[in-house]
Amino acid sequence: MAKNQKQFVEEITPMEVDFAQWYTDVIKKTDLVDYSPVKGFMVIKHYGYAIWENIQAYMDRRFKETGHKNMYFPLLIPESLLQKEAEHVEGFAPEVAWVTHGGDEELAERLCVRPTSETIICSMYAKWLSSYRDLPFLYNQWCNVVRWEKSTRPFLRTSEFLWQEGHTLHETYDEAQEETLKMLNVYRETAENLLAMPVVVGRKTDREKFAGAYATYTMEALMHDGKALQAGTSHNLGQHFTKAFEIEYQDREGKQQHPYHTSWGVSTRLIGGIIMVHGDNRGLSLPPGIAPIQAVIVPIAAHKGGVNEAAAKIFEELKPAFRMELDDREQYSPGWKFNEWEMKGVPLRIEIGPRDLEQEQVVLFRRDTLEKETCSLSQVKQRVGELLEAIQKNLLEKAREMRDQKTHVVHDEETFKRIMKETPGFVKAMWCGDEDCEERVKAETGATIRCIPFEQEKLGDTCPFCAKPAEQMVYYAKAY
Amino acid sequence: MAKNQKQFVEEITPMEVDFAQWYTDVIKKTDLVDYSPVKGFMVIKHYGYAIWENIQAYMDRRFKETGHKNMYFPLLIPESLLQKEAEHVEGFAPEVAWVTHGGDEELAERLCVRPTSETIICSMYAKWLSSYRDLPFLYNQWCNVVRWEKSTRPFLRTSEFLWQEGHTLHETYDEAQEETLKMLNVYRETAENLLAMPVVVGRKTDREKFAGAYATYTMEALMHDGKALQAGTSHNLGQHFTKAFEIEYQDREGKQQHPYHTSWGVSTRLIGGIIMVHGDNRGLSLPPGIAPIQAVIVPIAAHKGGVNEAAAKIFEELKPAFRMELDDREQYSPGWKFNEWEMKGVPLRIEIGPRDLEQEQVVLFRRDTLEKETCSLSQVKQRVGELLEAIQKNLLEKAREMRDQKTHVVHDEETFKRIMKETPGFVKAMWCGDEDCEERVKAETGATIRCIPFEQEKLGDTCPFCAKPAEQMVYYAKAY
Ligand SMILES: [Zn+2]
Ligand SMILES: [Zn+2]
Repeated sequence: MAKNQKQFVEEITPMEVDFAQWYTDVIKKTDLVDYSPVKGFMVIKHYGYAIWENIQAYMDRRFKETGHKNMYFPLLIPESLLQKEAEHVEGFAPEVAWVTHGGDEELAERLCVRPTSETIICSMYAKWLSSYRDLPFLYNQWCNVVRWEKSTRPFLRTSEFLWQEGHTLHETYDEAQEETLKMLNVYRETAENLLAMPVVVGRKTDREKFAGAYATYTMEALMHDGKALQAGTSHNLGQHFTKAFEIEYQDREGKQQHPYHTSWGVSTRLIGGIIMVHGDNRGLSLPPGIAPIQAVIVPIAAHKGGVNEAAAKIFEELKPAFRMELDDREQYSPGWKFNEWEMKGVPLRIEIGPRDLEQEQVVLFRRDTLEKETCSLSQVKQRVGELLEAIQKNLLEKAREMRDQKTHVVHDEETFKRIMKETPGFVKAMWCGDEDCEERVKAETGATIRCIPFEQEKLGDTCPFCAKPAEQMVYYAKAY
Repeated sequence: MAKNQKQFVEEITPMEVDFAQWYTDVIKKTDLVDYSPVKGFMVIKHYGYAIWENIQAYMDRRFKETGHKNMYFPLLIPESLLQKEAEHVEGFAPEVAWVTHGGDEELAERLCVRPTSETIICSMYAKWLSSYRDLPFLYNQWCNVVRWEKSTRPFLRTSEFLWQEGHTLHETYDEAQEETLKMLNVYRETAENLLAMPVVVGRKTDREKFAGAYATYTMEALMHDGKALQAGTSHNLGQHFTKAFEIEYQDREGKQQHPYHTSWGVSTRLIGGIIMVHGDNRGLSLPPGIAPIQAVIVPIAAHKGGVNEAAAKIFEELKPAFRMELDDREQYSPGWKFNEWEMKGVPLRIEIGPRDLEQEQVVLFRRDTLEKETCSLSQVKQRVGELLEAIQKNLLEKAREMRDQKTHVVHDEETFKRIMKETPGFVKAMWCGDEDCEERVKAETGATIRCIPFEQEKLGDTCPFCAKPAEQMVYYAKAY
């Protein structure tokens, strides 16, 4: 290992030594994020924000293809609105930020900074809906939300984060259920196809569902340290909110009805997932689909005749097709640049030096496999496209392998506890359906039921914890 | 006028009768916006938000082409940070919303909801900047801001609005000044090329400049009622903030220096400008560049053989090239639809009925000129493209004519007062440069100096109000 390479690597704590410190090192050293003067609030720096922009662009297109339109609802919600749905206010009131003064004046009613927008949106839907002809309502918003968190970690749990929240109304329960699952599926496809992040999809237990939901569906991803990340949720809200907010319409028979309601959201938390699923001890490793820079060109011995010019030419050729960077900074050596771009997780590096020029070729380096190959100048564009596709696929496959390797089937409590302690990951087990049993497992092991997966397997007939009859298989894990 | 057409038109108060009511009618009836349960906060509905998305897409591309990257900074700013720059806090403190509680706990220090982000961004820039090699810093953010307004109007002045704010740091005053003017020029081009909204560009007087700025530059547009709209501002902030926030770097000679600083922003206010510049008594008239729907297809006698199929075929052909809508709703008559889409300002309507089908043609209707023409089926795509371009140009030209017609040159106070009272608009006049004189004109007429334009004309030697020597020509107007 060259000297400067070693120095770079030493800046990042190995994940086996201290995963939390590894995470902190990586996000700080790669311009993804920084801590702000307000505790729990972070600055998303350009490299991190560009990942979010790529996620947004893909998802926004998918939302529009599925018939949704964007709106923007107010940041501040009157306390009285928040209180209209009982479970909802109980779930969110402890973690909202309250605005009490506007300028020098104390407000007659406190306003909360939105932790989520069901209440304010329902108050508007009640105004807008009158006939079954108006349905479905299919709206989404991209915005910031605030939840006052005691203990925070960048991207994973912060007092403010960016997200999208879809809010829809439907004539029937079945249509609402179909929408709930359709959007969960859009999330799953985003995770797998764009983020190369395999997920388990299923329903949350009542204990873990959204405050005010009839049923919550989730996608759960597994991180390198064996902890699960809830990466996106879709809620069938039934008529809980539409009744509380008196949203009514005249149905096809002329009768007044409450519509059925869904909401669904993913957030900048996804970026934390990308880091912890694909990263390694060299730093980030970004899927080409969301990488702010898909390929970086590094000239070698750039002062020698023609190298910089050739690098610039390749850059101009590739720029219209890929997100490119030409690193022609003079104050850094090629080795230093190699390491920096590896740390920043750029999927592909293109090296070109005097000898390459002579042979009319470049060297291509893959961040995911650390493999090098040469490629003739005339083939660069095509080969870069092929390799980016291959990297995207390989990252998904590697992540699947990692997850499968960390997924265990368990039939007894002792094994469960040993696994959660020694080799944490997903544990598949049968569940009795009892909330007290679920609660005891959490209290004793720190693991929660992540979901009741759609893909069921019959692992046995009884619950490993209480020996009562069990009909459902669930995924357990410790979670972020 | 057909019955249903009359009915539609009657829903909108004529602008000559009551311009404010006309504006309110138009925005409410066209799904641009709605009032929320929180006074001064509005909901931007899908039709309005889609305009904002189109503006964002264009501007974001221009920002990136000029070397800027996006970041995201926290919503909440500690009171102590806001107070670091004296003029700034004086300007903004009276209109900020204060967060005093997180969950059940009272905060040790109040946090304000950002009214603009100079202070929080400068606190981060102080951490990030160390060497001249790091400069320039060229960052932007798209976000929401809150300013507690006593009297509000949708888009024009609301307690919360969406905007972008660019914040840059530079080695020299000259570079900062160049950036300030460069971004003002991007704004001017956005206004003229995308929004078809002609603007006057120039510098603000010291009285009207941004709180904490060395100099503020502005673009000012003229509305149908003769009032001006400040449509975008770009500030050269000098070293005011970089000194207050102790932002320092080592310069090329190894000395510690404070960098020079700019900020610049436009907001959803632009949508108010589009409405008031192009709208008429039929409702909106949207420039194709930002219209959510550029052309709508309305089938006539749709039940007759082949009409719906032909309409659908045209829709499929045009959809990849233009933002299209096919209005095949059965519960509304063609006349009703014509009026609705005219009200919503869709630039082009494509009508197709049985007789058109026979003659293998469609009828094209321009919202800007209210003119109809026929076009053979085989030419539709090309002709739609040509007409959208023609409409975009024509709207800019019409707006220029309107503005020029409402722009007056004035040499004496009496004429000034008569114009401001009877036929308000821009008044070009010489100015002595005295703030007291400026203040008196405002107090007596309600008109302010909108800017000292870059394009100067020597209209005389003295100030019309105080008869003192005057070297600068300024634009006066009443303003939103
Ligand atoms: Zn059990
Ligand atoms: Zn004067």
